[in-house]
Order: sequence, then C-alpha cells, then structure tokens
Amino acid sequence: MSLSAEQKAEIAAQRETARETLRATAPGIEQHLHTAIPVLDHGFVRVVDYMGDDAAIVQAARVSYGAGTKKARDDSGLIRYLMRHWHSTPFEMCEIKLHVKLPVFVARQWIRHRTANVNEYSARYSILDREFYIPAPEQLAAQSSTNNQGRGEILAPEEAARVLDILRSDAGRAYDHYETMLSTEGKQGLARELARVNLPANIYTQWYWKVDLHNLFHFLRLRADPHAQYEIRVYAQAICEVVKDWVPAAYAAFEDYRLNAVAFSGKGMDCLRRMLAGETVTQEDSGMSKGEWREFEASLAR
Amino acid sequence: MSLSAEQKAEIAAQRETARETLRATAPGIEQHLHTAIPVLDHGFVRVVDYMGDDAAIVQAARVSYGAGTKKARDDSGLIRYLMRHWHSTPFEMCEIKLHVKLPVFVARQWIRHRTANVNEYSARYSILDREFYIPAPEQLAAQSSTNNQGRGEILAPEEAARVLDILRSDAGRAYDHYETMLSTEGKQGLARELARVNLPANIYTQWYWKVDLHNLFHFLRLRADPHAQYEIRVYAQAICEVVKDWVPAAYAAFEDYRLNAVAFSGKGMDCLRRMLAGETVTQEDSGMSKGEWREFEASLAR
Amino acid sequence: MSLSAEQKAEIAAQRETARETLRATAPGIEQHLHTAIPVLDHGFVRVVDYMGDDAAIVQAARVSYGAGTKKARDDSGLIRYLMRHWHSTPFEMCEIKLHVKLPVFVARQWIRHRTANVNEYSARYSILDREFYIPAPEQLAAQSSTNNQGRGEILAPEEAARVLDILRSDAGRAYDHYETMLSTEGKQGLARELARVNLPANIYTQWYWKVDLHNLFHFLRLRADPHAQYEIRVYAQAICEVVKDWVPAAYAAFEDYRLNAVAFSGKGMDCLRRMLAGETVTQEDSGMSKGEWREFEASLAR
Amino acid sequence: MSLSAEQKAEIAAQRETARETLRATAPGIEQHLHTAIPVLDHGFVRVVDYMGDDAAIVQAARVSYGAGTKKARDDSGLIRYLMRHWHSTPFEMCEIKLHVKLPVFVARQWIRHRTANVNEYSARYSILDREFYIPAPEQLAAQSSTNNQGRGEILAPEEAARVLDILRSDAGRAYDHYETMLSTEGKQGLARELARVNLPANIYTQWYWKVDLHNLFHFLRLRADPHAQYEIRVYAQAICEVVKDWVPAAYAAFEDYRLNAVAFSGKGMDCLRRMLAGETVTQEDSGMSKGEWREFEASLAR
Repeated sequence: MSLSAEQKAEIAAQRETARETLRATAPGIEQHLHTAIPVLDHGFVRVVDYMGDDAAIVQAARVSYGAGTKKARDDSGLIRYLMRHWHSTPFEMCEIKLHVKLPVFVARQWIRHRTANVNEYSARYSILDREFYIPAPEQLAAQSSTNNQGRGEILAPEEAARVLDILRSDAGRAYDHYETMLSTEGKQGLARELARVNLPANIYTQWYWKVDLHNLFHFLRLRADPHAQYEIRVYAQAICEVVKDWVPAAYAAFEDYRLNAVAFSGKGMDCLRRMLAGETVTQEDSGMSKGEWREFEASLAR
Repeated sequence: MSLSAEQKAEIAAQRETARETLRATAPGIEQHLHTAIPVLDHGFVRVVDYMGDDAAIVQAARVSYGAGTKKARDDSGLIRYLMRHWHSTPFEMCEIKLHVKLPVFVARQWIRHRTANVNEYSARYSILDREFYIPAPEQLAAQSSTNNQGRGEILAPEEAARVLDILRSDAGRAYDHYETMLSTEGKQGLARELARVNLPANIYTQWYWKVDLHNLFHFLRLRADPHAQYEIRVYAQAICEVVKDWVPAAYAAFEDYRLNAVAFSGKGMDCLRRMLAGETVTQEDSGMSKGEWREFEASLAR
Repeated sequence: MSLSAEQKAEIAAQRETARETLRATAPGIEQHLHTAIPVLDHGFVRVVDYMGDDAAIVQAARVSYGAGTKKARDDSGLIRYLMRHWHSTPFEMCEIKLHVKLPVFVARQWIRHRTANVNEYSARYSILDREFYIPAPEQLAAQSSTNNQGRGEILAPEEAARVLDILRSDAGRAYDHYETMLSTEGKQGLARELARVNLPANIYTQWYWKVDLHNLFHFLRLRADPHAQYEIRVYAQAICEVVKDWVPAAYAAFEDYRLNAVAFSGKGMDCLRRMLAGETVTQEDSGMSKGEWREFEASLAR
Repeated sequence: MSLSAEQKAEIAAQRETARETLRATAPGIEQHLHTAIPVLDHGFVRVVDYMGDDAAIVQAARVSYGAGTKKARDDSGLIRYLMRHWHSTPFEMCEIKLHVKLPVFVARQWIRHRTANVNEYSARYSILDREFYIPAPEQLAAQSSTNNQGRGEILAPEEAARVLDILRSDAGRAYDHYETMLSTEGKQGLARELARVNLPANIYTQWYWKVDLHNLFHFLRLRADPHAQYEIRVYAQAICEVVKDWVPAAYAAFEDYRLNAVAFSGKGMDCLRRMLAGETVTQEDSGMSKGEWREFEASLAR
C-alpha cells in the first residue's frame, strides 16, 4: 500500500480535526476513522464515516424519542431477540462508509451485493496505478478435488515460483503496454477507456462503499465464510474487526446467530430428533443425499 | 403535537450532549438535530442523525483520500455538474435519519418510495394514541374538475363545518370503540392486532425513516411538487428546509436542475426550435395532444 | 368477493384465449391463471402472469444456452443445492404477477417487503367499494399473554358478538359518511383524496404485485409462519399452493430448507453437541436466556 | 461469436417448440426469442423470456380485471401520460430476461445498474473461452480533448495497427499462460479462481440479466446515450430494437419523453423565456457557467 505524501497528509489532517456533534457517537469505531487497515499486498479498508451505534438499533425498534437506552443489558437482550427472529429493519438504521482498495476480480464479486452505494475510481477518467495483486506463495493452491469452486493443496515451491513469474511478468508487460498505448509522445495516444481493456483482473481499483448494518451483516456472513474466496474473505475479516468495535452488542448477536449458527433442513431435524432419542441414523435411512449427509455430519462435528 | 414530559426530557437531554467525533459534521443541520418541526395538526419531522455533507459528495465522486474539498467554489461547480448529468451515486454517499409522525394515509403514500429504511410504530405490539388529522377548514376542497386526483375549490363554510363534524365524530367514536374492544375490564379484551382495524386512515402513526440524499431528492421532487397531495407536500417542504441547511450546494443544484427544471419531449423541442426561429406554433400543428400542449404552454408561461 | 358481470366476463375471456409462445411454460400454473382464489371474506389472489419454471432456475445457474434441463432429477438436485447454500440469484430468474384484493391493514404489512413491484388502486382517483373485512367469530381472540404481538384465547361468543357489532356498525357508518362527503347533490362535495381519510383499516383495497421467486420465498417464509398475523398468513398460504404447482422442485426445496428448517445459534449448537454426546443440558448451564432456551426446546420437540 | 454445434442445436430446439399459454403474449418479441443478436466481435444479446406487453402496463395502471385494453389508441395515450408524469410503477409490470455475452470491462459498467437480476458465468467454477474483444480499427480513437471520459479523433492507421498488435498479443499470451497455470499435466495446476486473475478486461464473459421495463428504460437512457462508451452503447442499441418490437407504444413514449427529450434548469428556463420574448441572451447575462451555456446552446441547435 503506497500512499503519496500528500494523501498521507490529507488523512492525517482528518484524524486530527475532532469536531463537536449532537449525533450519537460510537467511541469504539472513532479510533478506526480515516485509518487504512492493510489487506492483501496493496489493498486496504478505511472507515470514512458511520451513522448510529447499538443504542440506535434499539431506538428504532422502539420508535422511541430519546437515545433508546435504558440499560445496556436490556438493549443487548433486545438486539439478540431482533437478530434471532430476523427483524432486520432496526439494523438498517446503522450505516457505514468505507474506502476500499481491492483487486478488480475481488471487486467483481463484491459488487454483486446490490443493496449498497458505490463510487468507483474511473479508468475512463483517470489512469490506474501500477499495482497488482500477486498472491503470497502460501496462497497458491491447486484446484480443489471436492469443491468445484475452491482451492485444494498448496502448490509445491517450484510450481508456485513458475506461477508467480507468470503473474508478475504478464502484469508488468500489460501495464507497460497500457502506458505505451496512452502515451501521446510523438503520437495521438489511445483513449483511456480503451487502453484499460488490456489490464488484467489482478490490478487494483478503489471505491467508496456505503452500506447499512443489516446488509453489511449479510455480506459478512457470505464473505467471511470459509467457502468464500480467500482474497475477498480477508476484506470481510478486516471489516468484522471494525464492526465488533462499532456495535459490540449487534456483532455478538451476529456471531452467535449467523456466523456460528447452523441451519438444519426439515429432513435434518427429523434425523436430529431420532439421534437425540438414542437412535443410530445413517445416510441410507436419513432421506438425504450423500452431499447433504456429509454436510450434516460436518456441522455436528464442528 | 403532544409530547409527554418524559419524552421532552429525553429529547432535551440529547440536545445538550455534544460529543467529539472525527467524522465530517455539517454545522447547518446540527441545529435541527432532535428538534421536532411541527407539521399538520399533530405531526412532526425530527432529524435524528445524518451522515456526510457537501464535501462528502465531492470526496466520493473523486474517490479521494482527504476531505475532498479544495475550494468551496470548485466543489459547488462539481456538484452542479454531477446533478446536471444524472451522476447520482455521489449523492448516495450522504444519509439522513428522520423520526416522523404522520397520518396513516400519508404514510401509505410515503412508503411507496422503496429505497429507504423504515421502522414503524407497531399497532400489533402497542396501543395507538388518540390523535387524528382533522384538516384546517381552508384545506377542505371539492374534487378538482380538471385533475382526477386533485382538489379544486375550497368548500363553503357550512359544508366545511359539516365535513369537520363527521371527521371528528367518526374518529372519536372509532377510537372509543377501539378502547372498548381492547379493554380487559370484566372481559377478555380483543387482541391489539385486531382492534386496530377499526381505526380510520387519519389516525397518526410514526416511524424512523432513513434514506440517502439521492433518493431523498427523488422523494422531494415528487412530493414537494404542486401536484402532490397537500398533506404529504407539507412534510416534503419541511424536509426541504432541513436539507437546504444540511447540504446547501447540493440543495441549490437540486432546486435549479430538478425542482425548477422543465423537460421538453422530442416533439416539444421541435416546437421550441420553430418558435425561437420566429414561427408561430399552434396545438394543431404541434404534433401534441391537447393535454400535452396545455402543459407545454404552461411550462413556458410559468 | 363480488365481481361485476363485466369483470367476470373479462376474466373469462382471458381464460379462453390460449396463445402460442416460444417461451418456457409451466403447465402447473397455467390452470391458476386469471382464476381468483378466495381469501378472507372479500379478498382474493389471482395469478395474472408468470415467467420461468424449475428449468429456468437451472438454466440461469448454469448460464446455459438451451432449456437447461438434462434430467428432471439432476435439476432437482441442483435446485436443492442452490437453496441449501443460499445461492439466491438463480431463483430471481422466475417472476410472478398477482392481482390481490386485501384489507388495508394487511396491505400495510405486505408493502414492507420492498423488493417487489406494486400498482395499487388509487383512492385519490377512484371511489373505494363498500367492502370491509369482518373476522369470522372463531378468529376473534384476546391478546396473547406470552406474545406481545399475537393472539391468545378465542373470545367467548357474547364478547365476540359485541366486537362484531362494533366493527360492522362503525364500518357501515364510516362508509355512509364517506359517500355523504363525496356527494355533489346540492353541494360541492369533498375531494376523494380527503373523504377517504374517514375509512377504517379493514376496508378492502387491491393491487397488482409482481415479485421474483427468491423474494417471494422470503415473503412466504415470514408470512406463512405461525407467528404472522392470521389475516396475512392466509394470503401467504394461498400463494404457497400456487407456487407448489408452478415450480414444484423449487417449492419442495423451499419447504425442506426454509419452512421446515431450524437454525441453531452457536450456543445452541454447543448444547446440541453435548446432548448428542449423552449429556443432560439444562437452561442454567446452556448459556442461553430463558426465552432462547424455551425456543430451543420447542424446536427440538416439534 | 462461436457457438458449438450442440449449443446451436439447443437454441434451435427452443425456437421450434411453440407452446400454448393463457398469458399475455407480445407477437413482436416472439420472433426475437432465443435468437442471438450479434454485438461487437464475439458478443450477443439473446432474448430468453419476457413478461407482459403494452396492454399489461395499462392494466396495472388501472388495476383492472381484464386485459386492460379498450382501444389501442386510448392505451397509447395513457402510456404517454404515465411516461410524461414519471408514473413509473406500471412500466415495472413488464419484465425481460436476456442472455448476454460481453467483454468484462463492459460488464463492469453494466452491473452498476443494481435493480436487475444477474447470473454470471463463474470463472471460479468453469474455464473461460479464448475470446477477446479486439476493437475494429475505426473504433480506435485518441483521448477526447474536451471530454475527460470520452474519445476524440480516430487513430491514424499505423498507430491503430500498433495498438491492435499489442491488444492481440497480450490477450493471446495471457490466455496461453492461463492455460499453462491451470494445466495439471505433470503438475498440480493452479485453482481456477486464481488462474483467472491473469486475464485482461477485454475477455468475454456472459450472464443472464433480468430487468423490469422501467429500469430497462433507465439503463437504455444512460447507455444508448452518445456519451456512453461505444462498447456498451452498441448493446443498448441492440436492446432498443428488441424493446421497440416488444412494447411499441411504451417505446415510442420513451423515445419522445426520454431519449429525445431535453431538460432545462430553472436558469435555462429563464433564458428560454427571455429568448421567446425576443431578447438576445448571451452567456455573460445568462447566469450559467460556460459549460452549462455550451450545453444549453447545443440542446437548442440539435
């Protein structure tokens, strides 16, 4: 992550200018404001702004006049109740705005979450920086043999080295050619909106991303999940740490009722009840397919 | 608008508790925070929270690191450019949260704007207050003879008096019966979720409503419009005053490019060009229907 | 439900006009098209149009060129996989359009589902019919003593009779006055947009409602749930029957993985694992609150 | 555009299987169903399904029981009225589903339209084809000197040739290396989700895209506009032709009130009224900035 001196000065200036407000403030997230949390080799997550705190969730659920808090303990109980019963609208009353720097292929997954506001750096308007995501060797893995969209074994060192060579040299060459095509020295130079088509999916882009807490939790549940691609998961994990400091009661409820929760199908519940009654249940008499049964057993063993 | 002493105390407490924050603050809207702006006979709009300011729009449009402001004048020019060219995403980077008390029939129009977050007071869970919207006599008007969904002439005093009598007595009786049905004195009492079905559409409800600036502008364009029903228009106008103080540059652009703007169809543009060339154009040779031509002439005369 | 002779003729005409199309058709839902399924005392659900079938889900998941079906059995397995793993976008590729007649208080709950398209009958533009929801006596119940937003015991016959008297006479009087205020006989008559505010929440309205299958499933999960208010639940149940005929494989997966599914929190899973290992777990050593433990036990007993 | 024999057979099979339905059909779009309309060098737009027709818009606006049509001419008048007054919900009652093959950099612009349903071909799950967008020489242009995000003069032939060489050879090499990294011959082979990061933004992807007519018009207004990048504009134009055949009355209204319409700001209206009154207005006394004045003059001259 390489910020210019000017950018660093701008960020620093923001961190030094405390202002008075009559709004709710969440002390835990104030410390994160304007600080770039490094992710991957050149990326970051930076909290630009937020609205609301745990009490704001309670306040909205009660449509109350004041700050909504009687005792922190009651608030936490209500928040857990809301989360457990999928009362999602009170969580929508909190909002966060992030500045994120991320590889294009990660951005393409991320943008699929439609209920958010986005302003992305425009490669039609501006020239992209020479920054590419090159995986750490321990992240280079073979195709998974069981999961069609996942990774399996780590690559052996020589094979990893060959892969890294390719990624580095192709990215470098693509960027050199991008500059060559753009250059107007002694020629017309190609329009930016065309020259950029030569750049690979591991180049970094950046955007402002603003989302409410309910939709952020949905994003985190899918993207902090072990099945998510590593390169987006690390962003989700970095955001989890921020949210934990921002709305601790809501995050604890999210952890218990979403991240660590397991849903059993009707068939799964039948098996579970039989097992609790002392019966031995096998895949053959479970009514589940082999895949489902494997997932069922895994969730009990975890 | 009748707040209990306790509610007033809660609101007052919030107004007295200034806190420090590293977030952007918008001084113009701080003065409105937690203050209930009266609307209609018992309603109000109260700003509970906000995110961002004019500079936040610029900052997002540029995906910049700092506060986004170089000179206020440049910012205003960029904001006007964005508004003119329908670049809506930077405006989505500002957010406002309102507590609104409003009659149910107004709430039913309002909720049609789907891109917002809402928590409404629940009449399944709680008992509604005995508060009904009774129009001021000068708002009682006959059906419009030209507009199928609007009002025409003001009612004569005696007719207005008869209408007010009906509205008052029916509302009062409906509420008395609501209480009778709910009452458990010497009987079981009807469930709240059923008893409420007896209440008319002019009873007041309240909600927390949170929306981004782009979608708020869309709401205001439609609901502050002279064709909107008076009872929702007054809410929109109250919110306009708040927004003007919150994001003055964005609001000025909105006023010029939306509220005061006129769109001409392809046919309208043809007529306009002919008229500017000195030609006299009539409805007959305009290619427009009578209704369109009437609207065309009205927009030029305004 | 009282359709005019003209309306019945229009509907009948639609049912008799079979047309040729190259689109996917779902034979199971064709029989429902244009037929009003009665709900409550005057309401209905009428399927106006649909897009897609089970194969369309598979086709989109595979981004395939043809109709997406190899064998129905494979399709069903893929659909179950998608549902189990919350891959929601393929289900969004099916769409249904309903014409619904429903009491206003039901409409107010229903509209909270924002990801749908709605056109409601306008009481600014038109005059509402004299049709009110009057509950059947066996639906009149006291407030629940355990659930703050639900019903408990059925009312005793005399109390029910008194309630029905109130509901009927208040609705009748409100409608009489509505007509009186609208009437222009010998007077100006009040504008429709104002006269309607006198009408209670049990009057019927109607709308066209269009939604994709993913969001419809979400609606059905919440509204066909035993905790939903009876008066919206019967609409959800009527729609469930339609969906079962429309996309049988998707509906079966929905039933197993959503309607009949149970989600356990992290704490719940800990208890479950201890119980499966033979341990006796009580609320006291479960880490759960009394409310959570009660729900936990109930889900195992079901 | 290179479909395999099997894909062609699947598509052909769909085109030959006419089925009976009781739904509304739109004859004009039936001819387009399942036919791939070529766009750019390897892309296409293929209509997979649709819901509704012009009459369905009218039917929803009236919340009517029958097919909604009295006379086609009345329908067209109502549709024009709805479009003129931004009554958007009736247009949401029509829906279309497209299968689109498009370069990744076009997909990245396209996906910014959030109110649509999308299923994209997964490069985590599958291997992408060796197909890249290589612009036709007459599309290769220099950066615009007036528009920061647009193209200016066409490149001279030799410069164009150099650019095409670069684009072709970089794409070819990137794809060769993609295959090399994936290959498991004598080695582990890199996971697909990683190997793909080497591929440039001009590689083709494909997706199913489903959208309602209101949101489609919004997309078309922005993307069929002369300021849109050529490579997405040609997709928008291809879709325009389809929509024209699907809902001719709605499309004609869209053309007149959106595509060919011009919006004047409050300031612009002041100038216009002065000009119509015979006054000569210049930028200096217009109250507009130079940029605005230039756009104002251009819209009158068009």
